[in-house]
Amino acid sequence: MELSLVLRNIPKINEKFYETAQKRLDNLTKPQGSLGRLEEFARRIVAITENLMPELDKKAIFTFAGDHGVADEGVSAFPKEVTTQMVFNFLNGGAGINVLARHAGADVVVVDIGVAHDFVNPPSPLPTGQAGPFGKGGMGGFVSQKIVMGTKNMRKGPAMMRDEAMRCINVGMELADEYANKGYKIFGTGDMGIANTTPSSAIAAVLTDRLVSEVTGKGTGITDDALKHKIKVIEDSIALNKPDSKDPLDVLSKVGGAEIGGIAGLVIGAAANRIPVIIDGFISTAGALIAYAIEPKTKDYMFAAHNSVEIGHKAILEKIGLRPILDLNLRLGEGTGAALAMLIIEAGLKIYREMATFGEAGVSNKD
Amino acid sequence: MELSLVLRNIPKINEKFYETAQKRLDNLTKPQGSLGRLEEFARRIVAITENLMPELDKKAIFTFAGDHGVADEGVSAFPKEVTTQMVFNFLNGGAGINVLARHAGADVVVVDIGVAHDFVNPPSPLPTGQAGPFGKGGMGGFVSQKIVMGTKNMRKGPAMMRDEAMRCINVGMELADEYANKGYKIFGTGDMGIANTTPSSAIAAVLTDRLVSEVTGKGTGITDDALKHKIKVIEDSIALNKPDSKDPLDVLSKVGGAEIGGIAGLVIGAAANRIPVIIDGFISTAGALIAYAIEPKTKDYMFAAHNSVEIGHKAILEKIGLRPILDLNLRLGEGTGAALAMLIIEAGLKIYREMATFGEAGVSNKD
Repeated sequence: MELSLVLRNIPKINEKFYETAQKRLDNLTKPQGSLGRLEEFARRIVAITENLMPELDKKAIFTFAGDHGVADEGVSAFPKEVTTQMVFNFLNGGAGINVLARHAGADVVVVDIGVAHDFVNPPSPLPTGQAGPFGKGGMGGFVSQKIVMGTKNMRKGPAMMRDEAMRCINVGMELADEYANKGYKIFGTGDMGIANTTPSSAIAAVLTDRLVSEVTGKGTGITDDALKHKIKVIEDSIALNKPDSKDPLDVLSKVGGAEIGGIAGLVIGAAANRIPVIIDGFISTAGALIAYAIEPKTKDYMFAAHNSVEIGHKAILEKIGLRPILDLNLRLGEGTGAALAMLIIEAGLKIYREMATFGEAGVSNKD
Repeated sequence: MELSLVLRNIPKINEKFYETAQKRLDNLTKPQGSLGRLEEFARRIVAITENLMPELDKKAIFTFAGDHGVADEGVSAFPKEVTTQMVFNFLNGGAGINVLARHAGADVVVVDIGVAHDFVNPPSPLPTGQAGPFGKGGMGGFVSQKIVMGTKNMRKGPAMMRDEAMRCINVGMELADEYANKGYKIFGTGDMGIANTTPSSAIAAVLTDRLVSEVTGKGTGITDDALKHKIKVIEDSIALNKPDSKDPLDVLSKVGGAEIGGIAGLVIGAAANRIPVIIDGFISTAGALIAYAIEPKTKDYMFAAHNSVEIGHKAILEKIGLRPILDLNLRLGEGTGAALAMLIIEAGLKIYREMATFGEAGVSNKD
């Protein structure tokens, strides 16, 4: 796929659809505006899809998995092999994202885009509805699109080649096309990758023009001393690689990660297909920020799932101009926040679709 | 039912259950604490039910409906007959609470506790799952327990007699017992009553010891001038009736409402039955505040659904010590916020129940 062609296909939102949707909302049996952000979500889904009676019947969360060479610098609380172990956990339906995607009625699509393990014989994912050891499966499939066997250690050189970064974006764009063609109506993003708050903080620092210390947190739970070390590792990586803040692909390749590139591509592809895309937490917003830096129109297709505990998250949300839906002190990733936010966005659309109007219900409107 | 006997039945929470639940949560395949408030909700459900593997399979939202004599003072944007019309809308499945309760898999129980209309022949509510004009029904039933034909105008005298207020609380307590016996595992509160932000603000002012102007908002959407008038009406009502802030029943009867009393009773009855109860928005928290003032132990059974637009809501939440789950600019009532929060609380419990442990999944734990 040619990125420039896909970018050209991203439609500008026609704001008339906001007004048309709000007219219907204002005629439902409730005081005008009284369902607050639920009404905002409904308006946006109508405008994104240009459909006056949209449905969100098929939903997918894409959990992109990749490893990070910078894990060798001791920036994470967990050992590197956990990325691979968690991919198997996803496929068995036992991870947080499996539980919450089932709750939201969404399928989980696990994408190996850069795990440092050769999945020669991955377990078959449990099909939706089939009972597995940890409850019902809700798998949309396992996608093998490995671009790198983990990134390189960015403290010693670029994490990826520019060409590899571009291919990661391509994986995301192609998945967006494929799942749009399969009839999926809304996407959520997710990530798995030990040490991936480190490249996310690096991207946040470069693209929001802030100090590394202002956008770096404790990830899965490191100590105060380890946090100082993590900040130093990121500062060193930026100083060594000199990513060009005017060139998002340069930033992604030098101090990013494969799963972050996949997420950026999914966001771009979602926009090109008029599909709303829910951005999960810190790592996902780093991917969304790459997409936004490539093409700002992608913002109009994004929903920010929640307000993460990671301090760099707020900086990115402000930069893109997104207001999170939930604030539940989450910091797991995988797409867990996106799955929860999907339930709330869908609630807004159901209000729009299913409530009776004043006329239908015979209820008197405001004086 | 004798209130004092019910109060004696409210168990103190055994905090050991929080620890036991957290131990399981800490052994699931995620960094410790990384699911934030979802973990808090799971811990609390375990401790409330004293069940190490609780289920929330049967869920009910109780929407208490009542009219208010003080509506004659022109404090609401909507005419009084809307209370009755909305009861019919609930029974037909077309209101906001019907849509969101269906989304949450909860039944709606509509309780006529004080509507100024004689429902001689109410339409049969649509049973759960049956298709109606506005989608599938999700009705738990229509309950006729009318204590008053609307309250009296509190600007001219007490809204209710003390005995009537007590009977309203009784209705709520009895419903809690009945639905606990039917196997319901979690309750949500809701309200319908034109002008009922007015008594709610009066209760907030008296029981949180604040100025009326600090706890009074625009309700369903009145003008700035009408807001000034509403504040004056509440100030007059408090000055005339002199509710005793040390006597919650006195406050409820003089400046409260029938549906607010029903909600207070439901909260007390939920606690006595070890059932978690989700408090909706401003009017519901006014009822919860009456319950809390009667017996502070009820707090341990409450979940605050959301942060309402009504300014008095925050004052009540602070007084009880509750932190809201959602913040979506809602101000509809009916139980709509409770239905949404129910989805999030249930997500927390599913995490607790369904996620794989490190051992089960073969995932390495933190170093």
